[in-house]
Amino acid sequence: MYDLLITNATLLTMAGDGAGYIEDGAVAVEGSKIVAVGPREEVEGNDRARQTIDAGGNLIMPGLVDVHMHSASVIARGLAQEVATWMGSAYGPLVRHIRDEDAPLYTMVALMEGIANGTTTFGDYDAPMNELLASHVALGNRAVVCQGTTEINWADREQWIEQGWRPGTAPPLNRAYGEAGLAAEIALYDRWHGYDNDRIRVIFAPVAADMTSEELLLEFQRVARARNSSIHLHVAQDPRENNAMVERSGLRAIPYLDSIGLLAPDTIAVHMCMTTDDEIELAASRNVRMACCTNSIGIIDGVVPPARRFRELGGVVGLGSDQAPGNNSHNIFAEMRATAMFAKIKADDPTVLPAWQVLRMATIDGARVLGVDDLTGSLEAGKEADLIMIDLQGPPMAPVIRHPARNLVANLVYAQTGSGVLMSMVAGKVIYEDRRFTNVDKTAVLHQLAAAAGEFEAAISADPVVADLPIAQLTRSGLI
Amino acid sequence: MYDLLITNATLLTMAGDGAGYIEDGAVAVEGSKIVAVGPREEVEGNDRARQTIDAGGNLIMPGLVDVHMHSASVIARGLAQEVATWMGSAYGPLVRHIRDEDAPLYTMVALMEGIANGTTTFGDYDAPMNELLASHVALGNRAVVCQGTTEINWADREQWIEQGWRPGTAPPLNRAYGEAGLAAEIALYDRWHGYDNDRIRVIFAPVAADMTSEELLLEFQRVARARNSSIHLHVAQDPRENNAMVERSGLRAIPYLDSIGLLAPDTIAVHMCMTTDDEIELAASRNVRMACCTNSIGIIDGVVPPARRFRELGGVVGLGSDQAPGNNSHNIFAEMRATAMFAKIKADDPTVLPAWQVLRMATIDGARVLGVDDLTGSLEAGKEADLIMIDLQGPPMAPVIRHPARNLVANLVYAQTGSGVLMSMVAGKVIYEDRRFTNVDKTAVLHQLAAAAGEFEAAISADPVVADLPIAQLTRSGLI
Repeated sequence: MYDLLITNATLLTMAGDGAGYIEDGAVAVEGSKIVAVGPREEVEGNDRARQTIDAGGNLIMPGLVDVHMHSASVIARGLAQEVATWMGSAYGPLVRHIRDEDAPLYTMVALMEGIANGTTTFGDYDAPMNELLASHVALGNRAVVCQGTTEINWADREQWIEQGWRPGTAPPLNRAYGEAGLAAEIALYDRWHGYDNDRIRVIFAPVAADMTSEELLLEFQRVARARNSSIHLHVAQDPRENNAMVERSGLRAIPYLDSIGLLAPDTIAVHMCMTTDDEIELAASRNVRMACCTNSIGIIDGVVPPARRFRELGGVVGLGSDQAPGNNSHNIFAEMRATAMFAKIKADDPTVLPAWQVLRMATIDGARVLGVDDLTGSLEAGKEADLIMIDLQGPPMAPVIRHPARNLVANLVYAQTGSGVLMSMVAGKVIYEDRRFTNVDKTAVLHQLAAAAGEFEAAISADPVVADLPIAQLTRSGLI
Repeated sequence: MYDLLITNATLLTMAGDGAGYIEDGAVAVEGSKIVAVGPREEVEGNDRARQTIDAGGNLIMPGLVDVHMHSASVIARGLAQEVATWMGSAYGPLVRHIRDEDAPLYTMVALMEGIANGTTTFGDYDAPMNELLASHVALGNRAVVCQGTTEINWADREQWIEQGWRPGTAPPLNRAYGEAGLAAEIALYDRWHGYDNDRIRVIFAPVAADMTSEELLLEFQRVARARNSSIHLHVAQDPRENNAMVERSGLRAIPYLDSIGLLAPDTIAVHMCMTTDDEIELAASRNVRMACCTNSIGIIDGVVPPARRFRELGGVVGLGSDQAPGNNSHNIFAEMRATAMFAKIKADDPTVLPAWQVLRMATIDGARVLGVDDLTGSLEAGKEADLIMIDLQGPPMAPVIRHPARNLVANLVYAQTGSGVLMSMVAGKVIYEDRRFTNVDKTAVLHQLAAAAGEFEAAISADPVVADLPIAQLTRSGLI
């Protein structure tokens, strides 16, 4: 007897090569796992069920995968965009006011936003991850987490200046600082990897090539490989990184990483937007996995990441929401729409990167990027029951046309905003339904957020650097 | 005594040059009109109110303006994208199956989608407008409508071929057919213009230069000017139009329209995307008003319309959702985000077309484009009370940071999807609240839509031309 039968559903399983459409389908669940998926009469005919959910003809599909996000910076949402140098003139001066003790609340808010918009698996890349995981655990989502490590200890800034360092150039690296970071990551792995029947997995995160010595990068790779895990790093995000690597090694970021063996199948490369065609070809040929953050890079740099080309070269691409100060939301539907549209504009060709390919980036390919396609990303017997229900009765998904052409996939990518998510399930448990979270009181969290926002306002208001930022000047002008 | 006081609100009035932010504000309404807007203590101190709405600190701002939409084609939503020639290989063969008797239902669905996402004024450009207006009237929104006229009578197609016309070239014009169209538009104007205290206005719509003779274009201009109205036409939408105009007049679309005096302040030019820099400069110098349909043109052509440049040259720009088969939604929040992002990508510069300018396009500048800025588009004493309330308590608008920099405008443009619209009011009357429409039963409409979708499916399934379209082939491949 099935534990749960979800029936009377329009299915997109994402199994096989495309979207895996099944017109009148059902999904059977036992424990945390899917045990049968297919046409309704087949699945219903096999066995009976303790509990049945009638989907009412609505869409059941895999929960979305956000492969790269910095959850705790949500407190600075909308304060970092439309500047020439985002890191220095917007993001950096704001996020240094985030206190570790407040960060789990912010992560909770970012995850709530993602879940309400259909995400079930989060590739969260933030600190202090040991504490942030309390929010992942409470909400019930799936996560593949890491806590970034660099060898740049900004606490030493005054000392560097005394020693002749010029601001704007690559800061000196501190091996001991990096080793402490790696040790913390190993401790995180030991404590959390595999938690709750693999609902939480831990991977390793040297932040970027220019912030880490060659020795430490290679040590990260050894540590990750010994655990059959992955490394997740920013690659060629902005000219700073390429410039610093040329200065240090004579090679730009991607050829440098290749020269030390770090372009490999167990590497998740985020962004890769400041790259030549040859560099993208090299990365794809090494079977690196790509995390593409379309809206973030669009708003931060005015640039289209090379997702389309990387995919055409055979690479696997997932979508990430990155951060709220410079995106400005954690919404994979917004990432799908932008990824499909930006590719068309860049190519001056409306036929490139069709919707069904982008839908795969947001589901099964995202799961492959994070190394959890054994668990999630498609509806197939043997995988965990991570799925969402989307309203097909009203706009923007209605009318649903099925013959002789289907509009479902195009409307998911180009019209759906996330507001159509009716229910979300992870490992066979409902975590979100009727705009409420099963395990967390949204109203209480938002009250805490409002109080924390007041404290964050007070902190940034006392900082003369923030008062000089372009957005503070624009605010004083009265235009916003 | 005020009829209505909306208080305890964060206001964006859109009065003045920017977004018109007021931290703790109120709006007072008498009859259909705003009589006071400002800081709460000022407005509350002036008079008492029969009815009070406590906004609970949420945002009150002008309702959004959708300057250009074809409402009835919503039945083919998501069936027309990712093809090389959209009009011929997707849109045209589908929309010819829309029956006049079903069109008011489809318009109702499109308007419901727009209203749920914050739009209060619709620039609807469709037929049979006399019947479609029943939906606008029922829902209670504001509209500036027109019914397009051309001199191309596709019913004569067989006859043209006998006379030597080659498909793909400009079809012959039929003056009598165009005159009948103009007469119908005048009748529409006489019946509806000014309806319900100016809630409905009618303007004139020769569809495009290449579909209309010079004489008829000039007659349209005379008719519109005699009524102090506007003409609303597609300009340089695709290469077809420029090619046809060169063939006929030796001039591309924009120089041709200028040569006959049609580039003028009473012209609303839609798209202008297949244009040179000089042509955009010419149009801006003539004070043409621009309707920019960013997502539609992005998905149809893979092109970024020149909204940023037109605005920098002093032109006024509004945003339009165009049509659901090729967009694929009627959502001005989606248009704002795309317009701001696409401009940055096109310029390779994240600082261009900041959010506050795009928010003006979606409100006061949209009202100027449609010639209704005397009525709507900003919250100012003397204008109609057309406004929306947006949730600021939760994502994607929370946290709200006010000092020393405000994140409200950036998050409206880059994060809000439309799902945060809590209430919508037109001319002092609530037309949408708590996801329900005041005057229309959404469930009943969606039941009718599902039935109509079945009939539409049957009609297109019987058409061998539709069976050959790329999306039908993609459907048969199983990928979607």
